[in-house]
Amino acid sequence: MIGIVNKQQILVKRPVGMPTPDTWELKEYEIPELEKGEILIKQEYISLDPAMRGWMNDTKSYVPPIELNAVMRAGTVGKVIQSNNHSKYKEGDVLVGMGGVQQYTVTDGKGYYPVDPSKAPLPTYIGTLGMPGMTAYFGLLEVGKLKEGDVVVVSGAAGAVGSTVGQIAKIKGCKVVGIAGGPDKCSYLINDLGFDAAIDYKNENVRKALKEACPDGVDIYFDNVGGEILDAVLTQIRMHARVVICGAISQYNVTQPKGPANYMSLLVNRATMQGMIVFDFADRYGEAAQQMAKWIEEGRLKHREEVLNGIDHFYEAFCKLFTGEKQGKMVLKVSED
Amino acid sequence: MIGIVNKQQILVKRPVGMPTPDTWELKEYEIPELEKGEILIKQEYISLDPAMRGWMNDTKSYVPPIELNAVMRAGTVGKVIQSNNHSKYKEGDVLVGMGGVQQYTVTDGKGYYPVDPSKAPLPTYIGTLGMPGMTAYFGLLEVGKLKEGDVVVVSGAAGAVGSTVGQIAKIKGCKVVGIAGGPDKCSYLINDLGFDAAIDYKNENVRKALKEACPDGVDIYFDNVGGEILDAVLTQIRMHARVVICGAISQYNVTQPKGPANYMSLLVNRATMQGMIVFDFADRYGEAAQQMAKWIEEGRLKHREEVLNGIDHFYEAFCKLFTGEKQGKMVLKVSED
Repeated sequence: MIGIVNKQQILVKRPVGMPTPDTWELKEYEIPELEKGEILIKQEYISLDPAMRGWMNDTKSYVPPIELNAVMRAGTVGKVIQSNNHSKYKEGDVLVGMGGVQQYTVTDGKGYYPVDPSKAPLPTYIGTLGMPGMTAYFGLLEVGKLKEGDVVVVSGAAGAVGSTVGQIAKIKGCKVVGIAGGPDKCSYLINDLGFDAAIDYKNENVRKALKEACPDGVDIYFDNVGGEILDAVLTQIRMHARVVICGAISQYNVTQPKGPANYMSLLVNRATMQGMIVFDFADRYGEAAQQMAKWIEEGRLKHREEVLNGIDHFYEAFCKLFTGEKQGKMVLKVSED
Repeated sequence: MIGIVNKQQILVKRPVGMPTPDTWELKEYEIPELEKGEILIKQEYISLDPAMRGWMNDTKSYVPPIELNAVMRAGTVGKVIQSNNHSKYKEGDVLVGMGGVQQYTVTDGKGYYPVDPSKAPLPTYIGTLGMPGMTAYFGLLEVGKLKEGDVVVVSGAAGAVGSTVGQIAKIKGCKVVGIAGGPDKCSYLINDLGFDAAIDYKNENVRKALKEACPDGVDIYFDNVGGEILDAVLTQIRMHARVVICGAISQYNVTQPKGPANYMSLLVNRATMQGMIVFDFADRYGEAAQQMAKWIEEGRLKHREEVLNGIDHFYEAFCKLFTGEKQGKMVLKVSED
């Protein structure tokens, strides 16, 4: 024993629909001595991502489901506080990886990578410079095949991925329309991030608003939400449009998912709908992170985080992903100092 | 007047759902003298294609809707019997074009092209060597990006497009599974066309049958039908699969179209769903027709037609497209000798 108590959120049942609080149990235990080649990471921040909901289902997907009675899977950023002869990482290194919803992670370091805490605030490394940022970058540029002058529409536009998508498209000389919930988020998109237009799906007819904002149609639709918004945008795409399927947050907690009834618009417009998983671009994260760090430094790529404090607030943080009651990237601070 | 009476099927109302017989009216009139530069085509065969249903709706699409009180739009093959100083076509030429559902067409020849009646039976020119064949050829090779060894699934497999898709895929060294309605069609696919497997969607669980026929998943799905079959195939696609959206015959006559609820399989499998319109490949029809004529000659590309006789049987022929009570390409013989 090394005198450290770890708190973990354990997945104890598979939810049907929206998870209830008893989906997880908070477990405490004392961390044993490290094996040779292991490191102990004290996690600072846990990343909250809509994809986590999918990982909880026992279905074939792009990663195996989280096992029952295992630590809830999540991205993390934290500092190495012990190393038992690890070949790469030593005390003081700051590592990003899939450390799970817990305060400490014992690991052999596989799948982790080091980041420089002097260059950006830690949450940025699980946000704009982490998985959400990479998703935006490669989804827009590679899958969406962005060209200067394209009309780009993004849903979940005030979120971690969406806000980055829209800003990259602006940097690349495109017209950008964001779809988000509520006037506050919409005003943030236009006034803080420089979007050309914003549509408040909670208070506007999306189809009509899109028609006004994009009278010549939409070239790229970056979809984070699915459902009725996907259907509305499909009616407004133009010739050779690209629909990037990044997520479908409106569908993750429903038991009878709804497909895009207007998908035949793909035929009329010779358009493409393509799914993406950011992990496929892992060997190019470095290139993207460098570019995005430069944009952040230049003040051209902004981000904001909503931080909840304490591992016992995990359920609350998780729910905010789906209710939309958050501003920007949702993170959970789990370190206790 | 030139002493010839023409019979035409006129679109007199826009159907909601499946068209009723009073959607069209049969009109007779005597053809006037040709203007200078016009030709008179005596049509032999009218092509019946599922796409015709879409052309009847007053909605934005890839071609303008058929106007009310105009001749029903359709592909045709027929012989020029008069030419009033036409610059390209003379008496005796056999032309393919959009002549409409009528016995005679007066036209300036725009959009028509000549074919050689000694090389193939006339219906072939509106079938395997016409729009359906071109759709199969470019849809599979260009949009589907067919590679040797791919596992190809095609729906509407016994139809004009589907049967050609499957045979081209076989010629190109792929494994081919056809989905069709009823044991007769399925036996035709396997025993006459050489498909590797056939699934009778009327009597089998498509998802289960696909899992058995394609245990490693599907690389290309060429979709002519949409609806539940599209949803079933989406559960069986594999990494980087291509779904070619060519048609959605199951949805053309429903008033509440259904989208593919399993479209998130595109994300899990980094797959692409792309719509196509054959007209986009018009400048390459010659190349495809030459290749396909060669395959026909070599006995590697088979086709069959179901011929109904007489322009007054148009409604019956049209309905057979949607009930599935036909074998192969549906054509209507309209010439009376």
